[in-house]
Amino acid sequence: MHRALALAQQALWLTSPNPRVGCVITAPDGTVLGEGHTQRAGGPHAEVMALRDAAARGHSVQGATAWVTLEPCAHQGRTGPCCEALAAAGIGRVVAAITDPNPQVAGQGMARLAAAGVQTETLDSRSDEAQQARELNVGFFSRMERGLPWVRMKIAASLDGQTSLQNGQSQWITSEAARTDGHAWRARACAVLTGIGTVLEDNPRLDVRGHNTPRQPHLVIVDSRLETPLDARLFDTLRTGDQARQIWIYNAAKGLEAKRAALQQQGATVIDMPGPGGKVDLAAMLRDLAQREINELHVEAGHKLNGSLIREGLVDEWLVYLAPQLLGPGQGMANLPALTDLNGAVKLAFHSVAQIGSDVRLLLRRS
Amino acid sequence: MHRALALAQQALWLTSPNPRVGCVITAPDGTVLGEGHTQRAGGPHAEVMALRDAAARGHSVQGATAWVTLEPCAHQGRTGPCCEALAAAGIGRVVAAITDPNPQVAGQGMARLAAAGVQTETLDSRSDEAQQARELNVGFFSRMERGLPWVRMKIAASLDGQTSLQNGQSQWITSEAARTDGHAWRARACAVLTGIGTVLEDNPRLDVRGHNTPRQPHLVIVDSRLETPLDARLFDTLRTGDQARQIWIYNAAKGLEAKRAALQQQGATVIDMPGPGGKVDLAAMLRDLAQREINELHVEAGHKLNGSLIREGLVDEWLVYLAPQLLGPGQGMANLPALTDLNGAVKLAFHSVAQIGSDVRLLLRRS
Repeated sequence: MHRALALAQQALWLTSPNPRVGCVITAPDGTVLGEGHTQRAGGPHAEVMALRDAAARGHSVQGATAWVTLEPCAHQGRTGPCCEALAAAGIGRVVAAITDPNPQVAGQGMARLAAAGVQTETLDSRSDEAQQARELNVGFFSRMERGLPWVRMKIAASLDGQTSLQNGQSQWITSEAARTDGHAWRARACAVLTGIGTVLEDNPRLDVRGHNTPRQPHLVIVDSRLETPLDARLFDTLRTGDQARQIWIYNAAKGLEAKRAALQQQGATVIDMPGPGGKVDLAAMLRDLAQREINELHVEAGHKLNGSLIREGLVDEWLVYLAPQLLGPGQGMANLPALTDLNGAVKLAFHSVAQIGSDVRLLLRRS
Repeated sequence: MHRALALAQQALWLTSPNPRVGCVITAPDGTVLGEGHTQRAGGPHAEVMALRDAAARGHSVQGATAWVTLEPCAHQGRTGPCCEALAAAGIGRVVAAITDPNPQVAGQGMARLAAAGVQTETLDSRSDEAQQARELNVGFFSRMERGLPWVRMKIAASLDGQTSLQNGQSQWITSEAARTDGHAWRARACAVLTGIGTVLEDNPRLDVRGHNTPRQPHLVIVDSRLETPLDARLFDTLRTGDQARQIWIYNAAKGLEAKRAALQQQGATVIDMPGPGGKVDLAAMLRDLAQREINELHVEAGHKLNGSLIREGLVDEWLVYLAPQLLGPGQGMANLPALTDLNGAVKLAFHSVAQIGSDVRLLLRRS
């Protein structure tokens, strides 16, 4: 299963919106007969890749064991159901690290395998392997179980918590190594989200650079009055590579038909999601993004939108790069209300800590 | 030498203001004949402890090698010179990790050993062992080489860099594990420094609690107008244990004779160190503290005094505990001026990163 998990890890930037899955087929004596991981959406799943690999190596898989990091699918999507492919190939036993949370699967994959006479086993959900399989697809599980993307907020700050100077200068607080690492986190996300403030101030591309990624994450802009400039650099990223990048602009204003049409002309999709106070309804936006098959949503926004997302309890994970410097008064990480009691703090837990170049990377989750 | 360094490490809380030194005496075949570390000030040094240990074990040290983490002393302090003790005992060879920076030693220890016919060797100053020996005595080297203590600023903050709420509430942002770790860092310091603001707001003891320490660090208060209350709890810490704790109050005001007398009556020493603007001259204070044999100075102060020390370039190391929570607007780590350019930031470098209980501990130094 460790090898299967490593294969799934290799698919981290590839399979969205499908889960990253690895599969290893072994003979009764443990010899590896074939292995593979899920390809990009519409391509073969891990099980089929492993069966093909075994065939290519000239191995029979009659009575062999297939180790998969996620229960084989039971539904006809863009590819046929993997449980049928495994049974048809003569696989004798299937061990899955974890049950597929997709309601179209959810145990039916293993049930159909068992009905076909295949021995089945699913690991204890508290096992390390099951936890790793889940972590690999934290966004897919979130979307299937909660109808929400896994929201990861990236913040680059100084040791004293400042993300920019009072005059707005923020390039670059963290080191090139940290920025490159940040692009790797963009690469695994289904979409990057930002706010109109960042678009107007920094004119960012918000695509993955400095890595050889097979796909670019989609782009989401919270832009309650459709102020995204038609010549924003982010429109340059729509047609890179062979996979179209979607740009979804969430709007809260009525009218603005001309601007709306112009933005759509540029290749963006404008989505009306009005909430209270003329703002975009952020919770509804996240539900809508889950409908659009966004598993992991990577937030790179300013302190205002960060604050709104945190105050509404919509953030699952914080990816914080701290640079070893003191900046003094500037712009903080997130606009939050002043507390009168420490018990009112937003309570998180450190998930991992690492040095990245000259900076420190902290990963935190809600506690 | 690794064993000698480990022995020196055991003396971390013990020897101040003397350096922490370890010594291992080995036979030509590598057998350990005796070992020891420096005792509390006035007690035997590491070399004498190791010689005594060898004697207690019934071992002859004729022609043996002594591994010491610091060049043996050559001067008559409260104890006799170690180089003479080693030579008199018949030690054949002395290997020192690093030269003693004390101008009363500074190579003379090794020279006198060589003159007595002992083979001597000092490790390359770039070697791991030499670096470790130096790190163990970072404050002693600072005092001997610069005439200044090694100034370590401890800060406990939320992830977003807040050390207290706007209403001053700060107990407790970090966890008990982090606070206990913080007390261990107090224990290794020669003195703890704070400002009158902290004394008035928190009424702290600033002693070591929760650890079995053989000595308490002295206490330094920056109190430019002698506002320390006569019933402050810190006076309760003067007479704990068998070693007297010094309380030094640095004052910048003239007059105040009655308060001065009353504070001295309480056991404090009032030291006049006026600087510009009615403030204590912090740089002069540090030089004075070095004269008072303070090696490592542990700063636990508020954002005002922190800011003053940082702005004057007087801080060597930052010991930062970050709690996994977001507090929103409050009091930052240090009062620093607003910058107009990121190049004006106070540039540091991460020295170590660790998880302590539910918090993260960051150690930084000036870069």
